[in-house]
Amino acid sequence: MKPLTIIAILTAALVGQPAARRPITLLVIGGTVVTENARHDVLTPGAVAINANEIVDVGTPEAMALKYRSVDTLTVRDQIVLPGLVNTHTHAPMVMYRGLADDLALMDWLNKYIFPAEGKTVSPEMVRIGTRLAALEMIQSGTTTFADMYYFEDTIARATREAGLRGVLGETIIQFPVADAKTPAEGLARAEAYIREFKDDPLVTPAVAPHALYTNDRTTLVAAAELGRRFGVPVLIHLAETEDEARIAREQYRMSPVAALESLGFFGPGRGEGAPGSGKVLAAHGIWVDDDDIAILKRRGVGVSHNPESNMKLASGAAPVTKYLAAGVALGLGTDGAASNNDLDMFEAMRQASFLAKLSTKDPTAVAAYTALDMATVGGARALGMDGTIGSLEPGKRADLITVATSSARFTPMYDAVSHLVYVARGDDVRNTIVDGKVLMRNRQVKTLDAAAVIADANRLAAKVREAVKQ
Amino acid sequence: MKPLTIIAILTAALVGQPAARRPITLLVIGGTVVTENARHDVLTPGAVAINANEIVDVGTPEAMALKYRSVDTLTVRDQIVLPGLVNTHTHAPMVMYRGLADDLALMDWLNKYIFPAEGKTVSPEMVRIGTRLAALEMIQSGTTTFADMYYFEDTIARATREAGLRGVLGETIIQFPVADAKTPAEGLARAEAYIREFKDDPLVTPAVAPHALYTNDRTTLVAAAELGRRFGVPVLIHLAETEDEARIAREQYRMSPVAALESLGFFGPGRGEGAPGSGKVLAAHGIWVDDDDIAILKRRGVGVSHNPESNMKLASGAAPVTKYLAAGVALGLGTDGAASNNDLDMFEAMRQASFLAKLSTKDPTAVAAYTALDMATVGGARALGMDGTIGSLEPGKRADLITVATSSARFTPMYDAVSHLVYVARGDDVRNTIVDGKVLMRNRQVKTLDAAAVIADANRLAAKVREAVKQ
Repeated sequence: MKPLTIIAILTAALVGQPAARRPITLLVIGGTVVTENARHDVLTPGAVAINANEIVDVGTPEAMALKYRSVDTLTVRDQIVLPGLVNTHTHAPMVMYRGLADDLALMDWLNKYIFPAEGKTVSPEMVRIGTRLAALEMIQSGTTTFADMYYFEDTIARATREAGLRGVLGETIIQFPVADAKTPAEGLARAEAYIREFKDDPLVTPAVAPHALYTNDRTTLVAAAELGRRFGVPVLIHLAETEDEARIAREQYRMSPVAALESLGFFGPGRGEGAPGSGKVLAAHGIWVDDDDIAILKRRGVGVSHNPESNMKLASGAAPVTKYLAAGVALGLGTDGAASNNDLDMFEAMRQASFLAKLSTKDPTAVAAYTALDMATVGGARALGMDGTIGSLEPGKRADLITVATSSARFTPMYDAVSHLVYVARGDDVRNTIVDGKVLMRNRQVKTLDAAAVIADANRLAAKVREAVKQ
Repeated sequence: MKPLTIIAILTAALVGQPAARRPITLLVIGGTVVTENARHDVLTPGAVAINANEIVDVGTPEAMALKYRSVDTLTVRDQIVLPGLVNTHTHAPMVMYRGLADDLALMDWLNKYIFPAEGKTVSPEMVRIGTRLAALEMIQSGTTTFADMYYFEDTIARATREAGLRGVLGETIIQFPVADAKTPAEGLARAEAYIREFKDDPLVTPAVAPHALYTNDRTTLVAAAELGRRFGVPVLIHLAETEDEARIAREQYRMSPVAALESLGFFGPGRGEGAPGSGKVLAAHGIWVDDDDIAILKRRGVGVSHNPESNMKLASGAAPVTKYLAAGVALGLGTDGAASNNDLDMFEAMRQASFLAKLSTKDPTAVAAYTALDMATVGGARALGMDGTIGSLEPGKRADLITVATSSARFTPMYDAVSHLVYVARGDDVRNTIVDGKVLMRNRQVKTLDAAAVIADANRLAAKVREAVKQ
């Protein structure tokens, strides 16, 4: 019998009750537990009690052992336990184009390399292989929820569900012919069928993703937003990413990209704040915005996804992160697709968000470590309208959490766990990844995907991509 | 008998000669070999032949196996082989202050946290424990040469030699009393004794390191530069790091920091280019410079160390990297101390150098992947005046090289090895680290340091640092 069990029985005897420990499915015993609750509680040591797909309690290891009898226990005493990271903007299958074309401006990169490569290689098979590779990388680097915009999104949804990840997955709507739709109308029909199929899935939230203001006409933008509202699913869009986009909006709409969408009723038909979960809009990038634009985004309840690495690599600019935070806009972090980053590591996104904010505001106190961590967890959940269910370690929320090893030279010494999570940690430091109460990776072993097979499939497909680009 | 040996003997028989393979100590068989020679040759696959501390040949695995008989062979077929990384600016023992104080301006961070913490905790013991921890991290992350500025630099030099790393190690000279010198005169005397002790060391190049323009008076700056010239050793200094420093220079000298040093004869007594190796100056940061300053640095043969992560985290600004490159200034990369970064990973420094240059020039083609890799290898060697001996994989150079694993999901697929080295790789991807022909880390096992003991020592010392800062 374990000492804690004996203590539990003795304690129960002393208070005149039998030792009625509540059965649960999983107990995670830290280490330092960074809860990301409203009080920013950090327990050292702490433990998280999970039953089925839900967090039922957070407390000291002793208290949790007294209260619960667990089927499975994960003991991670030298590790940090924290909410799973929320990647609010990516294009999962684009891992297949990772490093295919670097050091180019966004419009060149899209028009000369990515759109042509996609034209020749995107297929359900490519999307499935790419999503499995991306899911492997995300599980290995501590992302538990991701927002996606791509083609054949139903295939992405199936691969995501199989991998065990949580996703807000948007079918792309774009004006020109693409692999899964010859016209926007065909794309919208595909999106509707996909939304109907996945509407009640426990892991996948289906969404509609009009690509951008500059790649869709007014009719298509309005139709896509209305589709989202009709089914109460999120609407994902690239917004105010480049100076070029701002110029195009000025030419076509005589206003800023944000004001142009507002003028179309894209963010909502009436006045006032958009209701989360009912056609909530998530805008990726949000760089070329002024104070009026930020006020519109706040009033409409639009979530913003900040992608510092992609924005630096493509020289798109620096989003006004401190202004968004001051205005109370729901702000999450994203990696963008691996073709413009070039990986899916949310720890690097946190570090970069902090570094970029400090540089661009000339204020080294901007986006301190805790602010960056908030953006990658609760902030991302809020941007997706999911902060009621994910983003922090609190009773009643879904059991999405990760553990980070801290015993290497690089983590030594550790004066402050949150500082190390933001300024030192990388995806590879994640040891365990749990989504919806299920352990997807245990001590670096991924359980839901055969890593060697996933990588081999991707390498076979990469040979075709290489040929397609040569032509 | 191995197949290649049979081929060698058969080949020798066919051409009518005995198989006279030259004996060497180590053969590294790739994988992709990124030479960083002037032609930027990349061999896929390639091999590097090493004898004692020198690279003797680079070629195909077949050619190398035919020509050489090796005592030891390192076969790394799924890996990239490249020159060891050159970290041109750090303060190794400051790993002990990693994460102690974040999100602060440089002057606050120095005056309120770092200088007081140093006042209470810097000692030969602290410096030795800190240097061993830093050396462990550097070996594990592929740095083979580092330039250092700190106190008790003779102790740092001994710990560096024991760890097997190459170092350009500068004893700090500063106007106020510090742990190893009550006055600058005492510091200069310490520096001279240290330079005499290490002048002919195969791994350690002793140097003198006047801290900065704003922390030394004219007499001390001139005396430090003269000491360097007298012994023909490098002179390391922080230069033009912050806007505050530029303001102080304007107040005290009525000119820019670079022009102020030039007016003192700091970069050389006469006119014209400084001779490498004879009191060559290495300036760290170089952010607040104009075109005239860049011309001075070029004319004087001053090397510049660019530290993008530290410069962003402390909001110091963005160095004009593309201007330095256009002017032909010898430009290397540095991490700065781990207290302002917060690690010693040169892969992150490469990625950051590329990202920061693209953002700050609004040009996504600035500092392309190969340029960043050049800066971290040959560029750093040039900045240190050591490009005759290190920085590339070429016959006659010292055998300083590393290998990087590429089989993980994050590296899949791989269209371009150099893109992945800069935009995807991290220190933990390094599998083998070789310095001066000696394998310091083999398949992630560090041979010259007991990793567990080094970490335990650092954690014991960290408890004292924590107490000192509390008071």
